[in-house]
Amino acid sequence: MENKKAIIVGAGLVGTLWAILLAKRGYQVDVFERRGDIRKAELVGGRSINLAMSHRGWKALRKAGIEDTIRKVAIPMSGRKMHSVEGNLQFQPYGLEDQAIYSVSRGGLNLELMNIADDFSSVRFFFNHKCQGVDTRGTTIRFKDTQSGEVKDLEADIIFGTDGAFSAVRGSLQRTPRFNYSQHYLDYGYKELHIPPTADGGFALDKNALHIWPRGQFMLIALPNLDGSFTCTLFLAYEGKVSFEHLNTDEEILDFFNTYFADAVPLMPDLLEDFRDNPTASLVTVRCEPWTYQERILLMGDASHAIVPFYGQGMNSGFEDCSLLDDLMDEHSDDWPSIFEAFGQRVDDANAIADLALRNFIEMRDLVGDPLFLLRKKMEARFLQKYPEHFLPVYSMVTFSHIPYSQALAESHAQDELFRKILALPNIEQRWEAPEVDAIFQQWLESRQVALNTI
Amino acid sequence: MENKKAIIVGAGLVGTLWAILLAKRGYQVDVFERRGDIRKAELVGGRSINLAMSHRGWKALRKAGIEDTIRKVAIPMSGRKMHSVEGNLQFQPYGLEDQAIYSVSRGGLNLELMNIADDFSSVRFFFNHKCQGVDTRGTTIRFKDTQSGEVKDLEADIIFGTDGAFSAVRGSLQRTPRFNYSQHYLDYGYKELHIPPTADGGFALDKNALHIWPRGQFMLIALPNLDGSFTCTLFLAYEGKVSFEHLNTDEEILDFFNTYFADAVPLMPDLLEDFRDNPTASLVTVRCEPWTYQERILLMGDASHAIVPFYGQGMNSGFEDCSLLDDLMDEHSDDWPSIFEAFGQRVDDANAIADLALRNFIEMRDLVGDPLFLLRKKMEARFLQKYPEHFLPVYSMVTFSHIPYSQALAESHAQDELFRKILALPNIEQRWEAPEVDAIFQQWLESRQVALNTI
Repeated sequence: MENKKAIIVGAGLVGTLWAILLAKRGYQVDVFERRGDIRKAELVGGRSINLAMSHRGWKALRKAGIEDTIRKVAIPMSGRKMHSVEGNLQFQPYGLEDQAIYSVSRGGLNLELMNIADDFSSVRFFFNHKCQGVDTRGTTIRFKDTQSGEVKDLEADIIFGTDGAFSAVRGSLQRTPRFNYSQHYLDYGYKELHIPPTADGGFALDKNALHIWPRGQFMLIALPNLDGSFTCTLFLAYEGKVSFEHLNTDEEILDFFNTYFADAVPLMPDLLEDFRDNPTASLVTVRCEPWTYQERILLMGDASHAIVPFYGQGMNSGFEDCSLLDDLMDEHSDDWPSIFEAFGQRVDDANAIADLALRNFIEMRDLVGDPLFLLRKKMEARFLQKYPEHFLPVYSMVTFSHIPYSQALAESHAQDELFRKILALPNIEQRWEAPEVDAIFQQWLESRQVALNTI
Repeated sequence: MENKKAIIVGAGLVGTLWAILLAKRGYQVDVFERRGDIRKAELVGGRSINLAMSHRGWKALRKAGIEDTIRKVAIPMSGRKMHSVEGNLQFQPYGLEDQAIYSVSRGGLNLELMNIADDFSSVRFFFNHKCQGVDTRGTTIRFKDTQSGEVKDLEADIIFGTDGAFSAVRGSLQRTPRFNYSQHYLDYGYKELHIPPTADGGFALDKNALHIWPRGQFMLIALPNLDGSFTCTLFLAYEGKVSFEHLNTDEEILDFFNTYFADAVPLMPDLLEDFRDNPTASLVTVRCEPWTYQERILLMGDASHAIVPFYGQGMNSGFEDCSLLDDLMDEHSDDWPSIFEAFGQRVDDANAIADLALRNFIEMRDLVGDPLFLLRKKMEARFLQKYPEHFLPVYSMVTFSHIPYSQALAESHAQDELFRKILALPNIEQRWEAPEVDAIFQQWLESRQVALNTI
């Protein structure tokens, strides 16, 4: 029996993981990548963008048989550590005691996935191949070899577009009838900065936390790297009173950092150089539908649902695409039309995590410094412990479960309603464990039960 | 003094009108069009898509000095004529007695505008020139002559993208940072049909009305042409119980029309042929921002704000772009950065008419057959007559005024609130002119006054 042939466009995280899972099922997989082979490029240690791996990501890695390998190079972050303007620290756990999200290097993870994929004789990589689009029948896909200039029209049984937020495959589909599409940018940009290891090679900050300097309309965050350094990211408005447009001279930059992030400045000896050299990058949300075309092309990951990074779910949701498709292949084998139809329901989940990620920006930059918000978090933890059968905080649903994102978004509205009522109680700061609070909680539970029963 | 040079991409309605207005201001204008010269193609009389010209469109034509020419070939439609399933007719005026929207042929109007533009020695047309994009600095624009194959990189002081809903100029801008964009299709398609003139060359239906066969989830409409024919359009879901997917055989098509549009069938001798030969076209809403790039490129008309046709404002809003820009040139002369900045506020108006047009689909296909809706329309007419200083129906704002669309949308929410209260009165059908109704109206007026005073 001849093996089915798949083409994957894009050798990023999702493309390489999906190549592994397809190869395990006996597919002949050709992966085309616009850029050169990252394994031949010089990797700058500790300076690549960090990812926060959580449940959904780990599950996909488990399916590919590489969870343990990646766990070894991942740093657990069990909560947020907030830095106030005065330099005071406050820790807020993400979930239960044994739960954490994991800082991993994007470059390192991608390299590892690529090596594992390459170990399959049925997987071939073609670098420096730029996708120039698919034909309207969806049967051939065109690549240009950017080194030789050669243009090739290729065919496959099935084609996967995993070529990221600015996907060329999706660009082709955008011109077909009835393809719904949106790209929306925040008015905020981000810039990567850097905290090196201490003189003795240690971490300059607690390594088991995601550090946040929340400042209302903007924030700085830091994630640990294996070499003792931290990758920092400044999220700030492009324009306005406090914004990138006013950070041009060394004096302006230093003044800004000394005013708002005084405790971080001594840790960033290359601050001015980093600020000048690193680009100000933009933050886009991409939504589209359908993700499939002519029963032969499927978009995955950022190509179909790019989101802002504030829930740490970009890579996790892309990896969950792989898990779900793999599950659907258990059920439908190679019946791609049936797989496509079932997978189409995921559009709602992608839109939900896009919304949740946008909301979390406000939470991270602003609310984490708000006493009432912190009180809510304390009560969430208490409800979770006291009523584990009936209450799961939304953050835990998204991060430490496989509950569909759309369900988590619906739950977030319900929980907002609950806490609106509770936080309206007089002197709630002193009485957050009082019986009235539990009474409201019970009422809320019952009203939901009624709602469920009347469906 | 050397004349400034402008490039216009697209010789459709907005492109040609804008060429005239720019030429009047002394600009050297080159217009590039992807298709051939429509003046050399054979025009099929009465079969081109109809437009409903209203106040905003006329104003722009007046500025170009060609209002009278177009008035002569426009047919006034003073209201909607609804056809019930039983074939009963009901007329509903659009506004005051002397107000009407005007049926004009898109092809005829475009041809006229092209001829007028061509009379300026400073305007040149280049047909069969396909735009291949603009460079990222916004200084050069690339065209391919589709007849010779030649590729040209051209420069101008200012470039206008008037190349429609699938704009190539916008396609270039979409790939630049921070360009927000969405395209959204309705789940409905449309198909053009045709009612020929009667045997003696007359109109088969009242020619001074826009005919609607509202059927809840779908509808047929008809607009008059100068030759005595009507151009009909069927708007129907692509999929579902009653939908295009179930209209394949002659029997299915005839059965559908005989069931829902029985009085129209005898007027459409070519129904089956038209239905088979004409494509099922899609209905897209395009929104984007910013409409400008690098102080040198501006999108206009459908290129920046394509809307569904249900408010008859697609062409009117595109022509209003021309009027407003012309006004801004009065104010700012050739200071394009200032003009661009002021014109940027129009994005909100474009989004508002997009929303209003989507809402009007529901009104046209469904509500116009609803007694309570018709009652509201009667009350609107009464309020307009009785309180002309304080009440203008939203339809009139959009169609018979130059009030910004965003203001009309806000007013539509306020008026919905008013009529929600009025229609909740018991026996309102009998008492729609009773003093209680006026009391509610007065209350509503006062609450708005208070709101205005507290701003």
